[in-house]
Amino acid sequence: MAVEPYRLTATQASAKIRAGELTVEEYARSLLSHIEERDPVVKAWEYLNPEQVIAQAKAMDAIPPEKRGPLHGVAIAVKDVIYTKDMPTQHGSPIYARDAPKVDAGSIIVLRQAGALLLGKTTTTEFAATVQGPKTVNPHGTNRTPGGSSSGSGAAIADFQAPIGLGTQTGGSTIRPGSFNGIYALKPTWNSITREGQKIYSLILDTLGFFARSVEDLQLMADVFDLKDDEPPKDAFTVKGAKFALLKTMVWPQAGPGTKSAMAKAAELLKAHGAELEEIEFDPELQELPQWHATVLHSDGRSAFLPDYRAAKDQLHEFLISHVDNTNKISRAEQLEAFDNIAIARPKVDKMLGKYDAVLVPSVVDEAPEGTSSTGSAAFNAPWTALHVPVVNIPGFKGPNGMPVGVSLVAPRYHDRHLLVVSKAVGEIFEAEGGWKSAL
Amino acid sequence: MAVEPYRLTATQASAKIRAGELTVEEYARSLLSHIEERDPVVKAWEYLNPEQVIAQAKAMDAIPPEKRGPLHGVAIAVKDVIYTKDMPTQHGSPIYARDAPKVDAGSIIVLRQAGALLLGKTTTTEFAATVQGPKTVNPHGTNRTPGGSSSGSGAAIADFQAPIGLGTQTGGSTIRPGSFNGIYALKPTWNSITREGQKIYSLILDTLGFFARSVEDLQLMADVFDLKDDEPPKDAFTVKGAKFALLKTMVWPQAGPGTKSAMAKAAELLKAHGAELEEIEFDPELQELPQWHATVLHSDGRSAFLPDYRAAKDQLHEFLISHVDNTNKISRAEQLEAFDNIAIARPKVDKMLGKYDAVLVPSVVDEAPEGTSSTGSAAFNAPWTALHVPVVNIPGFKGPNGMPVGVSLVAPRYHDRHLLVVSKAVGEIFEAEGGWKSAL
Repeated sequence: MAVEPYRLTATQASAKIRAGELTVEEYARSLLSHIEERDPVVKAWEYLNPEQVIAQAKAMDAIPPEKRGPLHGVAIAVKDVIYTKDMPTQHGSPIYARDAPKVDAGSIIVLRQAGALLLGKTTTTEFAATVQGPKTVNPHGTNRTPGGSSSGSGAAIADFQAPIGLGTQTGGSTIRPGSFNGIYALKPTWNSITREGQKIYSLILDTLGFFARSVEDLQLMADVFDLKDDEPPKDAFTVKGAKFALLKTMVWPQAGPGTKSAMAKAAELLKAHGAELEEIEFDPELQELPQWHATVLHSDGRSAFLPDYRAAKDQLHEFLISHVDNTNKISRAEQLEAFDNIAIARPKVDKMLGKYDAVLVPSVVDEAPEGTSSTGSAAFNAPWTALHVPVVNIPGFKGPNGMPVGVSLVAPRYHDRHLLVVSKAVGEIFEAEGGWKSAL
Repeated sequence: MAVEPYRLTATQASAKIRAGELTVEEYARSLLSHIEERDPVVKAWEYLNPEQVIAQAKAMDAIPPEKRGPLHGVAIAVKDVIYTKDMPTQHGSPIYARDAPKVDAGSIIVLRQAGALLLGKTTTTEFAATVQGPKTVNPHGTNRTPGGSSSGSGAAIADFQAPIGLGTQTGGSTIRPGSFNGIYALKPTWNSITREGQKIYSLILDTLGFFARSVEDLQLMADVFDLKDDEPPKDAFTVKGAKFALLKTMVWPQAGPGTKSAMAKAAELLKAHGAELEEIEFDPELQELPQWHATVLHSDGRSAFLPDYRAAKDQLHEFLISHVDNTNKISRAEQLEAFDNIAIARPKVDKMLGKYDAVLVPSVVDEAPEGTSSTGSAAFNAPWTALHVPVVNIPGFKGPNGMPVGVSLVAPRYHDRHLLVVSKAVGEIFEAEGGWKSAL
């Protein structure tokens, strides 16, 4: 029996649509029917209008083949901090309940022009800025968090409710849900994709990212958003003979059993497949990176949330109120010192990472914790977000309770395409031999 | 005879309204009547609906005094790259003609909450990103440019069509129109005010700014946007005994006669009023600052304008098309080197500036040039925009054709309040003795 269309990756669905084996409407109906069945459990969507999706799909089927874009009919789940002019945008905040500005984010314009089928808006923590979970649960263990703040996109992609999801990351909001949900996630180089029309938490940290169930799908997104390295990567990359480093980072003492065993297993697999692997450490002068990230985050939140604070403080999470009130009493001097120290670190870290094909780092503290009230810790992600480097979460490992655990590969800034090629080869090994398989 | 309300500064109008000597409606009618008379000449507005303004003013008059905000009734002109949910936002681009997204920028939310009377949207060059002038002319010489990209806000404030205008600066788009129109302009520290809902050119450069006819009005804006230095400035600042530096910068060879004589006269006046004045220079390793700014600008434009390029390349200015096409062939390595070099320069320049009460620098190449096809050069502004420091344009001088020429004061990042106090004292001297008076 043929595979149900909703289970296809974006690349697979796109090929079938292009070959005339699947219409966009058939594809949309398959996804909608699966979503209808699963949504009462997973609750990944903040807004989804099946009639609107079908109308969009029918219109796409009417476009003559020569006028179709590279993403023709590919279904996308959009995190609800990204403006979409034909759907409400509510930022996970009661202040914006029933708000429907008629404007598209830059990323949405690019996706529409490429022919994407926008399915709906996925849940987010409030303004993608708190760790208080929305209604969404982890599809692999419904008593656990899917992570955040891109909770709905992470859960929906893992649960086959869409092949590709848009997320954002300011701390760990793309890589963490990627790991918790057992899927691939890409946080590209900062500012390599426009953030126009995406709610601001921190200008220097916020980064649009993608979820998918295959690296090819992330590469498809990289194509559409014109991500380019200075040198096109060699497609012929093989793990055998490649040079990796393993970097536990200064937050390693926080790692739980799932991450410890995933990192050990990942290292073992790379070596077993013929790669060189060297353990490295951050320069001692960079040990404060997590604190610098926190200082920048809180002080940027001070100006970012002033408008909402003034308009509706009573509906704003106390964590965000504390940013505006500067309850941590961060001085401007401390703010600038943290901002400048991170900036000075970036080229140094690029140089360190550039000695290897990629550097293996933890994605998360551990498998997804129980409960949905907290979306978990971004401790292992914050330094890389601050450093602006591309990060890919690779699934394949499991935690003590059988939940998925991913590990990340990182590379210097604007080596996104190279990193994706390496991630593809590494992902094939980790998915096959890492010990975790999705039961969905 | 009492002064016409439209001629009042924001601080003056606010005081009269608070004292019950002027209603917001009377104030609005005075401004609208003046705008009606002058608009056929100056053409500062992209959108202005008198009925909407009057309705807003009447609603404000109905608010009981104890519920009025700090800007109650203060009229504001809004540059048309900033979203306003009850007025169209068109970014000076045909792509967005007839576009009216129902969303307020963060700055607009803050202004509304403070009780401001939003008059309308002022002209801008395309996406605040080209130097091709809009229809607006310089009110002091209608055969000349008002500068750009904040053309309409600069001209409207000089022409008494509003007391306060919102501008943005990525190169010199606030300070240059400030100088060309003979008014005060503040480019605050980068990211000290949210840029939410303001069209993106370069994340690391774009800065919201203000135009006004008095420093008190800029201070009023700084209050409303909660701009705070680590140490509150001494109100008792006097030029006598103060310590200034004069920095001609690496682009001084581009200075024309108006700027040369304004800088000489400014230096002379400061010394005549008892200030110390030392001439300083940028460190030799910072001579490439203008090139670094240009490299960051062009490469940031590459991702910023991709959506518009994909949606409507035929309606996009060729300068912006060249960003997306990367016709300058800027490599990622060059882009990052420029980005990092500027970042490394910031704390060094802060330290250099911090030795003085303020540092005097040129605002522009010269007085406003003839014609409105080009809005002029940002050569003297780009380094300071890149360095993130606050800049105030101070009017008072004149060029060879009697047009206004300003000079700027700069201070280290997050010393905006200090810089405003110094600018007030210096502005009183320059306005009184610099040799230029507005004939409007």
